Amino acid sequence: MKLATLDDGTRDGQLAVVSRDLKTAHLADAIAPTLRAALDDWAFIAPQLDALYRLLNEGRHEGQARRPFDFDPARCLAPLPRAARHVQGVTYLNHPELEARANGAELPSAWRDEPPLRERAADGFLGPLQDIVLAREEWGVDFGPGVAVLTGDIAAGATPDAAHGQIRLLLLCNDISLRNLAPGITGSGWDWLAAQPATAFAPVAVTPDELGASWRGGKADLPLRVTSNGNGVGQLEAGEDMAFGFAQLLATLCRTRAIGAGTIVGSGVVSNRAGRRRTPGYASIAEQRWLETIEGGAAVTPFMRFGDMVRIEMLDEAGKSLFGAIEQTFRRPEA
Amino acid sequence: MKLATLDDGTRDGQLAVVSRDLKTAHLADAIAPTLRAALDDWAFIAPQLDALYRLLNEGRHEGQARRPFDFDPARCLAPLPRAARHVQGVTYLNHPELEARANGAELPSAWRDEPPLRERAADGFLGPLQDIVLAREEWGVDFGPGVAVLTGDIAAGATPDAAHGQIRLLLLCNDISLRNLAPGITGSGWDWLAAQPATAFAPVAVTPDELGASWRGGKADLPLRVTSNGNGVGQLEAGEDMAFGFAQLLATLCRTRAIGAGTIVGSGVVSNRAGRRRTPGYASIAEQRWLETIEGGAAVTPFMRFGDMVRIEMLDEAGKSLFGAIEQTFRRPEA
Repeated sequence: MKLATLDDGTRDGQLAVVSRDLKTAHLADAIAPTLRAALDDWAFIAPQLDALYRLLNEGRHEGQARRPFDFDPARCLAPLPRAARHVQGVTYLNHPELEARANGAELPSAWRDEPPLRERAADGFLGPLQDIVLAREEWGVDFGPGVAVLTGDIAAGATPDAAHGQIRLLLLCNDISLRNLAPGITGSGWDWLAAQPATAFAPVAVTPDELGASWRGGKADLPLRVTSNGNGVGQLEAGEDMAFGFAQLLATLCRTRAIGAGTIVGSGVVSNRAGRRRTPGYASIAEQRWLETIEGGAAVTPFMRFGDMVRIEMLDEAGKSLFGAIEQTFRRPEA
Repeated sequence: MKLATLDDGTRDGQLAVVSRDLKTAHLADAIAPTLRAALDDWAFIAPQLDALYRLLNEGRHEGQARRPFDFDPARCLAPLPRAARHVQGVTYLNHPELEARANGAELPSAWRDEPPLRERAADGFLGPLQDIVLAREEWGVDFGPGVAVLTGDIAAGATPDAAHGQIRLLLLCNDISLRNLAPGITGSGWDWLAAQPATAFAPVAVTPDELGASWRGGKADLPLRVTSNGNGVGQLEAGEDMAFGFAQLLATLCRTRAIGAGTIVGSGVVSNRAGRRRTPGYASIAEQRWLETIEGGAAVTPFMRFGDMVRIEMLDEAGKSLFGAIEQTFRRPEA
């Protein structure tokens, strides 16, 4: 099923079920007020949401107290505006490898054995069409699409298989970063915080079964499209070059501590290695700049400028938008 | 006022108002179901909680639908079991200075100018009497008392004064860490996560006015007592040697991104420099071990062993417990 959170003036918004084709929606408030509440009691709530989802897809709403309405991503908050916890991994190793090469450094060898993980801010998430509002271009504002999972409860020490069974929903995010404030890949953990403004999310969260056979090995094996000001810059495959699946991320994360329901764990920026016949393009400006540095000695492509727009979308097996699109413009704060 | 969260079987518990002397409590469910809900709408909710607090302290409950009951910390969850966000600073620089000296390293000079900050897990907090349940002694289990603030909304770029005005509540925490899994002070941000099990909190959260004149410069200028298995190990002064007050922590934190209501920001482990006449003792085992290394070449004091108990308490100006005590035993998971 597909779920969205509508802006009703509250901090956590109002839960809605969205049709598979993203055309219609139905309020879920008779089942659970918020996605947070649904995740807290998933075994009880999910079957009820799923029943509503099936009726919605079949266009059946006779006898229901309310009727479906047109789904409008402009009304959406992030599917889970405030998570219980937010952790980010590095799973597309091509991304930090390019950073390391551009800086004459080496990727820490441990990163090839186990996914590096980092705590992130768990709140303040942006909806799919909300602007990126930041005071300075000089901070090096960059986009960075990633896939993320939303989990149920996972016990400390759980196996990858057990953890995999607790993946409730998949998300598509834009992990915005301030590259000129960030430390290098192995930089001190104390230097990251200022470089990480709010993360944005695509309109709907989807259950893994929505991906069909494209959900395999704990990876979303589907195309990712990135455009900047309407120009295609990245044509990536999220199932390729992901060194660790989400089951492994979760098992690493819960080694010394349980994971609570409502935790978001992100893949890090999607990045594909260039093949012989294919240039994947880039999913973050920094990556293009590292390539330019490696190949020509200097970065040429500028970071985002006020007014620049980034669009991020993942396509399902039928070539349709799976999560709906993220479409954000970078602008300065209003005076 | 003083607020606690009682375990009612839900994840966020039930909000209660606690008398100043920590002897009686009154459910606040007619005002707000949870502390989270109260923080989301503080301007409206706080005056109602405060009115109940005054009645409770005066022993007046005629005409109220419910009566006060004996306050029992054993029934408490953490005051805010799941925060919107959790950030930890380093403000008692003596602590990392000792670590640096013991390892023949230098404190990064920037740490003296601005508080280093790090994202922490925002959920899974332990109540004051909940055990520290971890699988292995070899992880180097250590306690670490700190003061923390719970904030309202703070805009990006807010001044220290503006941020200070958004401090809603103060907390006392035990920031448990796995020292043998942790990187050094300037270690990679990717290596911290596994070293940080759940943080525990004292039974009540208090508004800053409860501290009277001891709340000054954004610091809680009060004594902190730490015992291990009943033996006093630390007699500290939380107002001394804190290089940055909470207003400065918050202003640093909101430089590139707004802070949302329900955010916890911690001071890091309290640590006093040894004076001529006074030995403050230690508030974390690691600190004692660094001292032993500096003075004698090797650490002698062991980290926590199964069955060990740590007790942490802060005293108010009258010498009474301000937040109630944290009292935790380290034990292995049940089979």
